[in-house]
Amino acid sequence: MVDKVLVFDPAVTDEQIQAWQHHLKLTNGRSTTRRLGPNPVLVVPAAPQGTAVSDQLPVPLREIALTGEIRLSDRSLRPEGTIVRIGPAIIGDGAVNVFAGPCAVETWEQLIATATAVAQCGVIGLRGGAFKPRTSPYSFQGLQWAGLDLLAKARERTGLPVLTEVVEPDHVGRVAATADALQIGARNMQNFSLLTAAGKSGKPVVLKRGFGATIDETLGAAEYLLNQGNDQVIICERGIRTFENATRFTLDLSAVAVFKQRSHLPVMVDPSHAAGIPALIEPLSLAAAAVGADALLIDVHVRPEQALCDGKQAMLPRDFATLMGKLEVLAMGAGRKMGSVPQPDVEELMAQNPV
Amino acid sequence: MVDKVLVFDPAVTDEQIQAWQHHLKLTNGRSTTRRLGPNPVLVVPAAPQGTAVSDQLPVPLREIALTGEIRLSDRSLRPEGTIVRIGPAIIGDGAVNVFAGPCAVETWEQLIATATAVAQCGVIGLRGGAFKPRTSPYSFQGLQWAGLDLLAKARERTGLPVLTEVVEPDHVGRVAATADALQIGARNMQNFSLLTAAGKSGKPVVLKRGFGATIDETLGAAEYLLNQGNDQVIICERGIRTFENATRFTLDLSAVAVFKQRSHLPVMVDPSHAAGIPALIEPLSLAAAAVGADALLIDVHVRPEQALCDGKQAMLPRDFATLMGKLEVLAMGAGRKMGSVPQPDVEELMAQNPV
Amino acid sequence: MVDKVLVFDPAVTDEQIQAWQHHLKLTNGRSTTRRLGPNPVLVVPAAPQGTAVSDQLPVPLREIALTGEIRLSDRSLRPEGTIVRIGPAIIGDGAVNVFAGPCAVETWEQLIATATAVAQCGVIGLRGGAFKPRTSPYSFQGLQWAGLDLLAKARERTGLPVLTEVVEPDHVGRVAATADALQIGARNMQNFSLLTAAGKSGKPVVLKRGFGATIDETLGAAEYLLNQGNDQVIICERGIRTFENATRFTLDLSAVAVFKQRSHLPVMVDPSHAAGIPALIEPLSLAAAAVGADALLIDVHVRPEQALCDGKQAMLPRDFATLMGKLEVLAMGAGRKMGSVPQPDVEELMAQNPV
Amino acid sequence: MVDKVLVFDPAVTDEQIQAWQHHLKLTNGRSTTRRLGPNPVLVVPAAPQGTAVSDQLPVPLREIALTGEIRLSDRSLRPEGTIVRIGPAIIGDGAVNVFAGPCAVETWEQLIATATAVAQCGVIGLRGGAFKPRTSPYSFQGLQWAGLDLLAKARERTGLPVLTEVVEPDHVGRVAATADALQIGARNMQNFSLLTAAGKSGKPVVLKRGFGATIDETLGAAEYLLNQGNDQVIICERGIRTFENATRFTLDLSAVAVFKQRSHLPVMVDPSHAAGIPALIEPLSLAAAAVGADALLIDVHVRPEQALCDGKQAMLPRDFATLMGKLEVLAMGAGRKMGSVPQPDVEELMAQNPV
Repeated sequence: MVDKVLVFDPAVTDEQIQAWQHHLKLTNGRSTTRRLGPNPVLVVPAAPQGTAVSDQLPVPLREIALTGEIRLSDRSLRPEGTIVRIGPAIIGDGAVNVFAGPCAVETWEQLIATATAVAQCGVIGLRGGAFKPRTSPYSFQGLQWAGLDLLAKARERTGLPVLTEVVEPDHVGRVAATADALQIGARNMQNFSLLTAAGKSGKPVVLKRGFGATIDETLGAAEYLLNQGNDQVIICERGIRTFENATRFTLDLSAVAVFKQRSHLPVMVDPSHAAGIPALIEPLSLAAAAVGADALLIDVHVRPEQALCDGKQAMLPRDFATLMGKLEVLAMGAGRKMGSVPQPDVEELMAQNPV
Repeated sequence: MVDKVLVFDPAVTDEQIQAWQHHLKLTNGRSTTRRLGPNPVLVVPAAPQGTAVSDQLPVPLREIALTGEIRLSDRSLRPEGTIVRIGPAIIGDGAVNVFAGPCAVETWEQLIATATAVAQCGVIGLRGGAFKPRTSPYSFQGLQWAGLDLLAKARERTGLPVLTEVVEPDHVGRVAATADALQIGARNMQNFSLLTAAGKSGKPVVLKRGFGATIDETLGAAEYLLNQGNDQVIICERGIRTFENATRFTLDLSAVAVFKQRSHLPVMVDPSHAAGIPALIEPLSLAAAAVGADALLIDVHVRPEQALCDGKQAMLPRDFATLMGKLEVLAMGAGRKMGSVPQPDVEELMAQNPV
Repeated sequence: MVDKVLVFDPAVTDEQIQAWQHHLKLTNGRSTTRRLGPNPVLVVPAAPQGTAVSDQLPVPLREIALTGEIRLSDRSLRPEGTIVRIGPAIIGDGAVNVFAGPCAVETWEQLIATATAVAQCGVIGLRGGAFKPRTSPYSFQGLQWAGLDLLAKARERTGLPVLTEVVEPDHVGRVAATADALQIGARNMQNFSLLTAAGKSGKPVVLKRGFGATIDETLGAAEYLLNQGNDQVIICERGIRTFENATRFTLDLSAVAVFKQRSHLPVMVDPSHAAGIPALIEPLSLAAAAVGADALLIDVHVRPEQALCDGKQAMLPRDFATLMGKLEVLAMGAGRKMGSVPQPDVEELMAQNPV
Repeated sequence: MVDKVLVFDPAVTDEQIQAWQHHLKLTNGRSTTRRLGPNPVLVVPAAPQGTAVSDQLPVPLREIALTGEIRLSDRSLRPEGTIVRIGPAIIGDGAVNVFAGPCAVETWEQLIATATAVAQCGVIGLRGGAFKPRTSPYSFQGLQWAGLDLLAKARERTGLPVLTEVVEPDHVGRVAATADALQIGARNMQNFSLLTAAGKSGKPVVLKRGFGATIDETLGAAEYLLNQGNDQVIICERGIRTFENATRFTLDLSAVAVFKQRSHLPVMVDPSHAAGIPALIEPLSLAAAAVGADALLIDVHVRPEQALCDGKQAMLPRDFATLMGKLEVLAMGAGRKMGSVPQPDVEELMAQNPV
């Protein structure tokens, strides 16, 4: 079955959309309304003789035929790509953006030391897990709500917006009230009630690809978010399960290029969880930027050997600083710039939080 | 770190357990209590000189040293295996048991016709999805609560206990009030809040292995259920993602043998979702029984070509009847029997629900 | 493109085939001749009006339209299945057949002790590697030609036909002169010059599926053998590479069923190399027989801990004896029998070669 | 078992090596000699008290302890990396090098048009298959020896050295007499007799990773080449088999970084065969250069729609020219340069071979 998707200018009113629906009823049949962020969208069955035009109704920005399932993430709906705003950070405008921080929030000292270090290197956001979904119920599950408070405090000091994982539909409201962006973890990529809740929250969402999920399934999961009218979605490649065990997962950088070609959503890459080996993070980060990723998500820890979760994969701040320098040069070579957020006063920050 | 796990007789009281804890404090340190179904369990740090014995306290049934994470699913805790009761059905006693029914509940006519057909073939339970987690938000998501009511009605007519999937922590109470057993789907295998809720419900749980999950991760997920004191858990192998695409997934029958050797939980196999091809269900079901599976979960549909979900993989009732006959012969050859539940009056059933 | 394949009775002469070619030239175009073992085969382009019949020419046994690449392994060419004869052993007649022996031939004592033990259990052939393709050039590469001589000597004593691997096209003639059947290893499945040489040898060939090869590619490799007029081909499933590492490879028993449905060739299963764990060989062997395998290939070693190659995966003779008993019962349950070869005098054998 | 590897200066004579062997006999035991290209190498068992030094013998350049199997490819033996020379081209000196050409040589017109086009873009070598290992015996198998002659002719015209696949041990001598470098295909990565023959030839070898082979197995295969004294080896990553089917294979760029860290051999990447989609070749090539690859291998075809083999994955010359421009900018950004070979007179070339 082929459907027509009409994308309208944000200025088009609900009344005008209803008038379009009325107008199309006879030629195409019943249409349904959706939103792609600010843009009203109409989905109508494709008519054999084409979709009727009306002089008195606003011309759609774009009119696309999609076979099979409607895909609000389809690139043809927004060929220029989607811009996602996370606090003061802008992702999707062509810049190379880096989120960094500890895998899990453990203590205030650990968090602020790491956050300060990565802020000085020019990242645009702070990552840190308060709720940690763990394979075993007997492993450290995160500081939970207390960890979220520490993240908010670290944002205050560093100016960095906060990206953190949400693991339950019931938590979404409270996490969304504090965090600047919600992360859906790989194990929850097809937790559809969580996706629906995250979509409804209106907050930007970083959706991690499941390590056993195909590219198509990942886009299907994004659709659950978009279907709630939330277009502030970033897809994150973090490695898939393969037979190769020299790395924890196999980072699928081809998928980054495929996501960019099929979808209008920005794409992030998490080399830390993919490789599980600090020495691979630099080359994989450079490769991710070169293949076209909009953002990187990197585990940094001031004392990796003391980390309660995935410490073995974290970079040291000094190696991270080297990486940021190389990324900047590579970005320039590709005619791109590094994304940035307003910097707090570095000296003051150092005085407050000596590493 | 090595821990000692003491497993006690169900008759041992909370006071006696507390006395044991007090007794062990000096030699071994702080212990924690858990339950393995009816059995009280104590976890204590292993003492270099061995765990102190007491004449005045009940002797543990079993005393096991486990390195690393405590695993309530470890076979050594219950070498004779666990019996799971789903309504009148008994799984884990050596018999070959079959659950069958439609992938999704679609209409009363479809459900009762299929349920009647499979009841006549000697299954011990009815499967049917009321809530369907789907890759796309635009696909049929199941009849939901109405579907659950139809399943209850089909149970009344056929006498078959009902196994159905639960997809949200908030649904667990209401689904558990109707269904005889809860299914955790492959996509939710690491939805830890769902696992915790299902564990707390006390209902039997069929835990499907995630298609990107290892055997160890699956046992880790089972641990979330057991950790709530619920030992009524069945692990279900339903195929993993591999490069081979002649089948939808690759059924990992080695995993069945590994699950049986490492864990005391019964193991189920779902050849329908694994293969995605009706012609493969018979040979794979026979192989699953031969490799040692306690139960099978099979999609049957009276009109597969009209199914709203995964119809292409469903067996026709007449092919299913042939399979059941072959299973019985194979089970006998292996010194096993087919599990059964009290049969309703077949003629009456036919009169009420002609296929 | 659709081609017609005409399969003729073995009694049809070359002259009659040429007459058919002449006859078909005008209606269908140029045809090519092949052989499927004893059966002459003609491949002709399908004519729109159907293939012309001739009163004066022998009627084909079978006339099949195949799209795409001609597949001499296609089941439709020989729906009754192919019988492969390896010395006195017959594979493909419905019986369950077992080949066993050491992974590598190491010494005469090791070989004859193992061969004697498996002969007593009722196997139909002796496996043993004289040439071992190894991942590292510094590992034991097998006794090579001396190993082949020992295999011939063991055959003399036990009456068991010998199956051994061939690794180079130049070796085929000499190995074929001694062995009763040639094995193409998984790493050589797409060594097309080796396949061609093995096909030309006329000897029965056991073709192991590559651990990174699809079912289709395996059938494509079989086609290289069949294309030389050699229909004495057995396909062997021995596990594929997946992310699961509880077993060395993931035994793909679905593939056995698919091979049987798509191809007329007998199928063998090697659970030893697939699992890499002796405790899994029994359940996997039973499952393989239940799924429809014609034969099993099992590593047995009298002293696995001393083996120079893959010893950790070999079964002990006493465990192997237990397995053979269970296989027999399972086979009977499925209406099958165990394959057998003429037994040498057991007492005499024991007297000569005490284990 | 730990072994010591002593690497000597190329000027050290056989007599001096023998003197070292004599000297070490008492302290360490029997040593064996190997060569790492020009460097004599001694492998000796590690002595508990350390390896004895001698004043009268040449000091080793490097003395390394390696556990397990000796690995002549181990980076510690040559931390500065190996330089491989293919005709006038130099690979391994830090430059980004590109080999391009048609997957298969089909006709002189096709070959020279493509070769001319890629020569103008600044590649350092011409790829082209004369012998094509194909999944089916009924597919185009290449022009074989005639194709090799055409490659030699194209080298004459364009000045580009020729890289072509060799598929049989018996072919190695004749192919090596014409080609500048031999390619071992993915399907033959563990064809050990072919590896041994290629190693002995002394010609540079591009060893493609098998699509089902691990990083360790690939290094093991390289060891077969190095063990013949041939250090002119390039490892080529070309994608592995995974469950993701949006691309033909999953290009494992992490493996490139791992190969570079573990081994001293240069690494090449083949994005064309990995992705199977022309639109992905540019981003993957840039990523490969960013991750640290020394060379790229790219399918280019002047008329991809007419290609007899893998045409769908070939780039058009104009898209390839764009890629080469972007690669140059990226290389500069990373402080690297593009490799080059002496250019023939472009105008003359164009006059002779108009595209």
